Parts: sequence; structure tokens; C-alpha cells
Amino acid sequence: MKRISILGSTGSIGRNALEVVSRSKNNWDVVGLAAGRNSELLQKQVEEFNPAIISLEREEDAAEFLRESPQYSSRLYHGQEGAEAVARYEENDIVLSAITGINGLRPTIGAVQSGKRVALANKESLVVAGPLILEMAKQTGAQIIPVDSEHSGVFQCLAKEEKDHVKKVILTASGGPFFRLSAEEIKNKSLNEALDHPRWKMGKKVTIDSATLMNKGLELIEARWLFGLDPDQLDMLIHPQSIVHSLVEMRDGSILAQLSPTDMKIPIQYALTYPDREESLMPSLDLNQVRSLEFYEIDDQKFPLVKLARMALEEGDSVAVALNAANEVAVEAFIEGKISFSGITDTVTAIVDDHKKRKIESFEEIFDIDRETKRKTRNLIQQR
Amino acid sequence: MKRISILGSTGSIGRNALEVVSRSKNNWDVVGLAAGRNSELLQKQVEEFNPAIISLEREEDAAEFLRESPQYSSRLYHGQEGAEAVARYEENDIVLSAITGINGLRPTIGAVQSGKRVALANKESLVVAGPLILEMAKQTGAQIIPVDSEHSGVFQCLAKEEKDHVKKVILTASGGPFFRLSAEEIKNKSLNEALDHPRWKMGKKVTIDSATLMNKGLELIEARWLFGLDPDQLDMLIHPQSIVHSLVEMRDGSILAQLSPTDMKIPIQYALTYPDREESLMPSLDLNQVRSLEFYEIDDQKFPLVKLARMALEEGDSVAVALNAANEVAVEAFIEGKISFSGITDTVTAIVDDHKKRKIESFEEIFDIDRETKRKTRNLIQQR
Repeated sequence: MKRISILGSTGSIGRNALEVVSRSKNNWDVVGLAAGRNSELLQKQVEEFNPAIISLEREEDAAEFLRESPQYSSRLYHGQEGAEAVARYEENDIVLSAITGINGLRPTIGAVQSGKRVALANKESLVVAGPLILEMAKQTGAQIIPVDSEHSGVFQCLAKEEKDHVKKVILTASGGPFFRLSAEEIKNKSLNEALDHPRWKMGKKVTIDSATLMNKGLELIEARWLFGLDPDQLDMLIHPQSIVHSLVEMRDGSILAQLSPTDMKIPIQYALTYPDREESLMPSLDLNQVRSLEFYEIDDQKFPLVKLARMALEEGDSVAVALNAANEVAVEAFIEGKISFSGITDTVTAIVDDHKKRKIESFEEIFDIDRETKRKTRNLIQQR
Repeated sequence: MKRISILGSTGSIGRNALEVVSRSKNNWDVVGLAAGRNSELLQKQVEEFNPAIISLEREEDAAEFLRESPQYSSRLYHGQEGAEAVARYEENDIVLSAITGINGLRPTIGAVQSGKRVALANKESLVVAGPLILEMAKQTGAQIIPVDSEHSGVFQCLAKEEKDHVKKVILTASGGPFFRLSAEEIKNKSLNEALDHPRWKMGKKVTIDSATLMNKGLELIEARWLFGLDPDQLDMLIHPQSIVHSLVEMRDGSILAQLSPTDMKIPIQYALTYPDREESLMPSLDLNQVRSLEFYEIDDQKFPLVKLARMALEEGDSVAVALNAANEVAVEAFIEGKISFSGITDTVTAIVDDHKKRKIESFEEIFDIDRETKRKTRNLIQQR
């Protein structure tokens, strides 16, 4: 029986993870749950899994939660500190880190510092703090297993392969809802159109990032640190079917690829059970049914954030932090109807172009640059 | 520096292997070469690689060879015994077993008995004698690494994966030159049409087997023994691009696949250098160029030998021996213009249907059944 805490339990990854865990209840004891603002869903999860420690993002939601269920008062925390407390809970064997955005960084640090297995779904942790997180994991013995389908695929293809056998890692992108449109047609797409992802059901932020392809840019940066690769060993391809999640080209010309149905439960379960694999209850992927797997180069005229992300991939340090921060604010502004779809690209590009690169040596510097960049981005959006 | 002997050095696999070895001459010492009937090519190979032991299939070719190059008299052998002598040569570190057909069995036994690494391209050895060969390898410590692109792919996907994680292994088939034709259209295809393989340049026998899809049937049987699988864990799919060579479905629904350009030098090199991988001089596979990877179920109405081979896969023992023997004779008869293309299927089906299954307990029984079945098959062809 393994004890698991889930950070971001009411989000898309968190809910899928609880489904995975429910399927083999004898193997799992859910000891901690950190939720966002959906206290109603957390309530249900707490009733089902009876965790020892829980947390909600906002203080007011926590207070409301306790009015409904005062019996949980000794277990309930809130805010970043609350999520961190769940991450650091000493009974944890595994922590699934699935809070979206930079908000997931402190809890991830907590989990890594505790030296447990960290099933990592929060990509921003490695995007902004890759070298620091990896150094910490080395010191504490924390084992970081990726949850993102693309990174899980790479992890599986690498298996025990020697690192110097790897020539290139290719992550695939579905291309999002706008892949077949022209740059002009994409420009003023609405929120609903951008949220209509052809393959994956995900949270709003990552769905919008999939439509701009920024998601893939962030994933390249994450992969750089996760697998210890040089920026020029990383590439992406559009693959509209989202069946092949990633490909690893070895130096002898052989390529290993990982495929699966587009269901996040597969990589989540793998990250939790690795090196074991548990039976899936889903039907097998039927390639005769899929018929054709297509691959296309990415047109970075059409998706300029890809080029910007590649630049940040090469620069690293504060450039990746600024990229991520500007993008978080811009996507939020788009969701709130404050800017157009192409406004995301324009905003992030302007902010990153204006950013002066600094070397990163501590987590606190990251939080400073994140805050500062977000303030600038909000100002820029207001001015326009 | 590793010492290698190549059985079947003048065939397609053998020539490719010598190219691989030539590329990194400092790593390889070619100590033995066993050729078929192409003594002129063997002559050139001997001049280039200066092996310590050589062999030709026929006595008359060996005699002719010595008239040209008497200086090799102490190194030259001939016949099955000659190939076996090369296979058992004590200086070998690795033996590449690439003689086509049942003729490759005795030399393969020799190599396995010597307890060295056997890079196995002769699929018939495992098709007819899988359990015996594996038992022998267990006793001598011989390491069998597959050379066939499909099996090399499976081997790479399995890596260190636990055997009970594997749900299914799928080998792909290009479909050969007739995949898009109707059963009626296939019936009377000429030798030249059958030899016109769309993807791979291979020897005549295996090219014809690709056109009937018997090749894939034999490969399923080979895979059964090589990877210790149950017959119902094995499947095949038509994949006309021949880029994905095989797929391994794990029990958690995740699939690992191996892809590479259609060049036999890649799996040959892998079998020789494993667990290392050497740099390839070929250009990388460009999936944007390939664009689309297609997969189709196999229509066994159109390719009835697939169904027959699946039956032999399940039955094993003498049924697989009879299937292979009848097919060898029928393909030869087709190449010699004695039967039509559909005559291959008719002949093999008639012989296998008539075969009485026996348990196999020794290599000698295999040779007996092979001889007996071939005699029967020749008679049947003559009668028609």
C-alpha cells in the first residue's frame, strides 16, 4: 500500500489521478489532497478518500468548507503554505504535483525537498527552475517521474538507454484547434474556439497554450532539464492524431516512439506505478481504426510563440521565467476577454523582447522575476 | 576489437554486414566468411578482410576458388560442414547467422553451441527449432540478438521491461507488391512482379515470401520463441511505409514502437554493437517528409498463407517444420517458373493440411521432417 498526496486534486490531472487510484484501492492510500477553488468537489473527494491532510487555495473557501464540515478543522490548511504542507506531509510515499502554473512551484519544491517520489505534472517547475530543482532532487534523493504524456513517452523510450546514445528527442503537438488555419484566420479566434481542443480534455490554461503552441515550447524547456539534453537535441512535430506522444532518435538512426490513446490516466498511472505497469481497463489502441498517423513541421510564422520559446530554451535562466510569467498573464487576460487571441502572442513577445537576462541562483530570484514580469505584463495590457 | 564470422557473407544481409563492419574497421576483425555460390564475390571479400577461415556452399565452387587462389587452401572449407566450421571457429566473438532457409539451421546450431553472441538473421532456425535452440543457448550462454528489422524493433522496445508487462507484440508488414490488389488480380502475378518489392531490397526467397505474406507468418513464429510469448500475444498489421517495424503494447495501454529508415544496416549494426549504439552515417528519418504512417488489418482471404502460418504458430512442433519446408520448395518452384504465384499458396496449404503433427525432441527429427516434407512437396508439384 503506497501513500499518495495529490496537489491540484480538483483539476483535470488530479481528478484523473483519483480515478486511477480508485481502480486499485488496495494499492493506494490517499493521505493528502490540495485543491484549488472547487471546495465542493474537494468535499466529495475528502468523503471518498478520507485523507489526513487537505488544503484549499483561498482562505475564504477554507472557512466556508469548515462551516459545512467542521470535523475537518484539524486537517485543513489553505493558500500556498497549505499546498506546501500537503507536499511535505511526512507520511507521503508519492506526491503528484499537478497545480497549474507558477503556483505549483513552491509545493513542488516542498515535495522534492522531502526526498520522495514526485510525479510531476506541473511543467512550470522545471521550466523556470530546472537546474535548482534537479540539484535539490540529487541531494534529497527525490525521484522525479514525468506525468505529461509527451515526457512520459520520452521517459519510457529512454528506459535504460545510455544518455550518449540519444541524438534527438521529438515531442509531438496536436496542433490545437487552429493548426490548419492561416495566420490571418487565427488572429481573432474567440475563447470558445480556442478552448475547443480536438484531442485532449484539459484545463483552460493548458488548452489555450495548446492553441498558441506555447504549451509545446514550455514542454521543450521542461524536457531539456528532465532528460539532461542540449537545446539542439530537442524538436517538435505537429501530429494531429495525438497518438504518438514523443519519439527518441538514437545515434544509430533507430527511433523509439511511445503511443497510446489520448487519455491522461495512462501516463498518470505509469508515473505512480513505475517501474511496474498495472493493467489498463481501457480498450487497446486499434491502429487499423486510427488508420493514419500524420506528421507536419511547425510553421513558426503561424505560431510565433514557438520561436520565442525556442529562444528561451537556449537562453534559459531568467528568460524562461519571464516567458512563462508573461504568458500566464496574457492567457488569463485572453480568458477574461481583455485581449484578442493574437494579443497573447503580441504581449508575450513584447515583454520577453524587453526582458534583460539575469542568471538564476535561487528560488527567491525566480519568484521576484515572476512577480515583476507579471506586473509589467498587466501594465502593458492595460495600456493597450 | 571484436572478431566476427559472417555466415551467408555474399547474400544481402552478409553484404550489408560487411559494409557496417567496414565503416568502423578498428572495432572489427572479420575472422570467418561462409558464402553461398557467389565465389567471385567471396574472393573480393577475402581479399579485403583476410579472414582466417572461409567456406563455399558447393564443392565445385571451392575447387574453382582454389584454382584461382591456391594460397587459401588451408583456410577453405565447403558444404554445410564448411559453414558449420566457420560458425564454430574458436576465435569468434560474434557469429552473424545469415544463411537463408533451413540450410542456416546447422550453422546456427554450431554458433549457439559455441556459446558466443549470435546475431540471428536466419529466421528458419527459430521457426523450426525454437525450443531446442533456446534450451541450447541457455546451457552454453550464447546470446541471441535478432537481426530482422521487426524483431530488432521488438528487442529494442522491450529493453529492460518485465515480461509480464507485455500484452501484445505487433509486427508490421509492408504488404509487399500486391497488397492493394484483389485476390483475383494476385493469382497469376509473374516472378518479376513478385520480386518488385516496394520498400526493401532483399534476397529472392524472402522477397517472394513478402509477396505472399508468408514472411510475416514465419516472423510471428520466430518472435514467439525469441521473446517467450504466447501465440495470442502476437499480431501483425500492414504498414505500407515500412517505417514502423514493430510495436509492443504494454498491459497499461502504452505502446512502444521502433521506427527507422528501411535500411538493414541499422538492425544489423545494432545486433553487432548491442548494448552500445554506434553513430549512423545515414541521414535521419524525416517524419515531416514521410508525412503519413498508415496501418491496415491483414485480409487473410487475400493472403491465405497468413492464416496457415497462424495455425502453425499455435501448433508448433512438426507443423512449423512442414510449413517452412513446403514453402521453401514451392517458392523455389515459382522462381523456376514451375508453378504460378497462387500455386505457392495451393501447394503449401495442401502439404500442411495433409501433415500429421509430431512432437519434436531433437534436431535430427527436424531434418527428417524437412526432407520428407520437401520430397512430398516436389512430388505434388510434379503431379500437377
